[in-house]
Amino acid sequence: MDDLGEGIERQPQTLAIEDAVKVLLQGLGEDINREGIKKTPFRVAKALREATKGYKQKVKDIVEGALFPEAGLDAAVGDAGGAGGLVVVRDLDLFSYCESCMLPFQFKCHVGYIPSGQRVLGLSKLSRVADVFAKRLQDPQRLADEVCSALHRWIKPTGVAIVLECWHPSLESFVMDSNREGWSSWVLVRSGSGVFDNVDEGESWNDFLSLLKFKFVAPWSRSRSCSSLKVSYKEGQLDSGMVTAVDSILRCLGEDPVREELVGTPVRFVKWLMNFRNTGFEMKLNGFVYGKNLANHKEEQLQIELNLSFWSQCEHHLLPFYGVVHIGYFGFNRVPKSLLRSIVHFYGFKLQVQERLTRQIAEVVSSLVGGDVMVVVEAAHTCMISRGIEKFGSSTATIAVLGRFSAEPGARAMFLESLPNSSIELGPS
Amino acid sequence: MDDLGEGIERQPQTLAIEDAVKVLLQGLGEDINREGIKKTPFRVAKALREATKGYKQKVKDIVEGALFPEAGLDAAVGDAGGAGGLVVVRDLDLFSYCESCMLPFQFKCHVGYIPSGQRVLGLSKLSRVADVFAKRLQDPQRLADEVCSALHRWIKPTGVAIVLECWHPSLESFVMDSNREGWSSWVLVRSGSGVFDNVDEGESWNDFLSLLKFKFVAPWSRSRSCSSLKVSYKEGQLDSGMVTAVDSILRCLGEDPVREELVGTPVRFVKWLMNFRNTGFEMKLNGFVYGKNLANHKEEQLQIELNLSFWSQCEHHLLPFYGVVHIGYFGFNRVPKSLLRSIVHFYGFKLQVQERLTRQIAEVVSSLVGGDVMVVVEAAHTCMISRGIEKFGSSTATIAVLGRFSAEPGARAMFLESLPNSSIELGPS
Repeated sequence: MDDLGEGIERQPQTLAIEDAVKVLLQGLGEDINREGIKKTPFRVAKALREATKGYKQKVKDIVEGALFPEAGLDAAVGDAGGAGGLVVVRDLDLFSYCESCMLPFQFKCHVGYIPSGQRVLGLSKLSRVADVFAKRLQDPQRLADEVCSALHRWIKPTGVAIVLECWHPSLESFVMDSNREGWSSWVLVRSGSGVFDNVDEGESWNDFLSLLKFKFVAPWSRSRSCSSLKVSYKEGQLDSGMVTAVDSILRCLGEDPVREELVGTPVRFVKWLMNFRNTGFEMKLNGFVYGKNLANHKEEQLQIELNLSFWSQCEHHLLPFYGVVHIGYFGFNRVPKSLLRSIVHFYGFKLQVQERLTRQIAEVVSSLVGGDVMVVVEAAHTCMISRGIEKFGSSTATIAVLGRFSAEPGARAMFLESLPNSSIELGPS
Repeated sequence: MDDLGEGIERQPQTLAIEDAVKVLLQGLGEDINREGIKKTPFRVAKALREATKGYKQKVKDIVEGALFPEAGLDAAVGDAGGAGGLVVVRDLDLFSYCESCMLPFQFKCHVGYIPSGQRVLGLSKLSRVADVFAKRLQDPQRLADEVCSALHRWIKPTGVAIVLECWHPSLESFVMDSNREGWSSWVLVRSGSGVFDNVDEGESWNDFLSLLKFKFVAPWSRSRSCSSLKVSYKEGQLDSGMVTAVDSILRCLGEDPVREELVGTPVRFVKWLMNFRNTGFEMKLNGFVYGKNLANHKEEQLQIELNLSFWSQCEHHLLPFYGVVHIGYFGFNRVPKSLLRSIVHFYGFKLQVQERLTRQIAEVVSSLVGGDVMVVVEAAHTCMISRGIEKFGSSTATIAVLGRFSAEPGARAMFLESLPNSSIELGPS
């Protein structure tokens, strides 16, 4: 937080964002003094200010002192070194915030530039400059354009080429039957200057793309806009106080809420957030009766339901986490998959922590099948990539073990061995 | 750098490390006022102090305020939620500094703990606590033990389990015929407390390892120690001023140079560094004469030599970078591979920047084959994972194009298409 100075917790922008987050939490039907979320307003304010600190950073401060003299070729005909030899840095993992929906999105940044004037830039500065523009509310194409022109301005090269692969949480998958492919939509954008100016052709682009080893150069795709977001909550029902609160957050971050691209953002954010409102009522199980025969307890079979997908919202940071639930239980009959899926969605669409989600699913399934239940939840947490943590590949697993699964290691092992080997990630899998 | 306070550039520890680095640079035969390296002493001092700031951090400050009350099971028999339900966070990418040789090493940290007392720790704190101990001079096993006992002390859980997968630069591969497998050696260590206390068996370990999806639980391996490092430079020839300088750096970082594990470190570090001394003399090409027939210029064939491995030392940060060189040239005959490998090694074992290395290799090969040369260098830079950049998966490619390769895009494309698809990484590939 060094760029935001000392005492961020007392700065007026931070306090104003906290007030706005309290409005949002109350709009979700939450008690803002509940133990788990009473510090959430401060955590959200701190995370948002850190995630947008790029507004205050200057490319000049990063680049100055990191331009090194480097000779070109002595006698031979051609290009190399500090004059004309393409330099490519691949696979820089970064994240930014979508200006359309205010959710963080992960991206891989690939930078190429052709030095001129016998000087090269320290390699790590390519990452630092990209991060200055990433730490703002952004659109992938504008992000690519801004990184490109900043590098061009400061390095004064023959040309700069930028390719961004972005993974945006796919809000369209907020439906009961979403499949795992739906978690994030992939967007590939590029920007070029100088000899890379024409992004649709050119020898320089061919060289650069060859080194990125893309096997899929076309098509350059744009995401379906978040602005087409379909959610079940009707716009007419939106709490105007919540919308005003998001508008106030945008101002506190130093943005102009009437900038064209931001006009719809508060409504979109509130629409999305309302998926996670505290419904309060109990889960209805539609009278499912399992008919457990306790006398033949030991002869029941292990029943397994894998990869039930879910979305949820981390109550500590108001950021999404999502993944799959695996459920194992002993019984003669299978619980209908649609019922298990409903249970997972019911406990997912709330302000949650993964440990509690796991326990709640286990408890309600236990009430259906008579006590021998094991639940494993595997999830990617957006709060682990933003907020200065930036652990892009990490994932979290939680377990609940009830009845026989608690007493018998062999039963646990049998279920654990059945789990798929694939990992849950926000970005590239 | 916030933990080191304002004005790090004027702090006495920083200035003392800078003086020591100047001694090392002079010992390598470098002019410390040369443009590319005149700020290297400050860059090295800043990087080392940042990489060891864990000595000044307190786990208490991270954990306090992030322990959340979370219920256990209401009525059912078993374990879940804030009591007894295993929580696993996988694949946290971090780096530390080896106390034996003072080089950074990358590791993946996997943490598991079983909550008790109906409280859970915010997930990101598991990463932050691990980082406190990573940002010190470390040994993999001690690092695992320290993270484990700190988490146990503060969470007060039923047990903590830590698995670290470490990739240490493999100094033993400093030989002309090193192959690519030799860049890093892999070490797997684990540590446990409470119900995980016995790391060789137990139900809890079985559950944890199942969720890590290790298909290779055994053997738990230890690296061949860096202390067995073989280098060509004789110990008797070591510059005692350089050894004293490293000793002084250890003191400035807050370490005790007579601590048992550190006693040999200055000698090992200087031995390793001396591989990169400025030899000054010209590359000898052993009278190789290519016999180029310029009249039949167009009928020469494209000759390609791929994956010539190299080690080099980034002159901006005194940190290793390494990877492969691919060389293409037009000719009737092939230049002996052993000669190309010698050229790559000669220009690699120096204080370098990748752009210059690429140009120098191209120029000397050009003098052998008559001008039509293309060189691609692909490398992983240790300075991109340490120093607050932490771009673990990134790699850098540089190109030199001479003669026909400069004039003919088709020639470039033909060579680029022949490049292997594998990427160069410090850690997992």
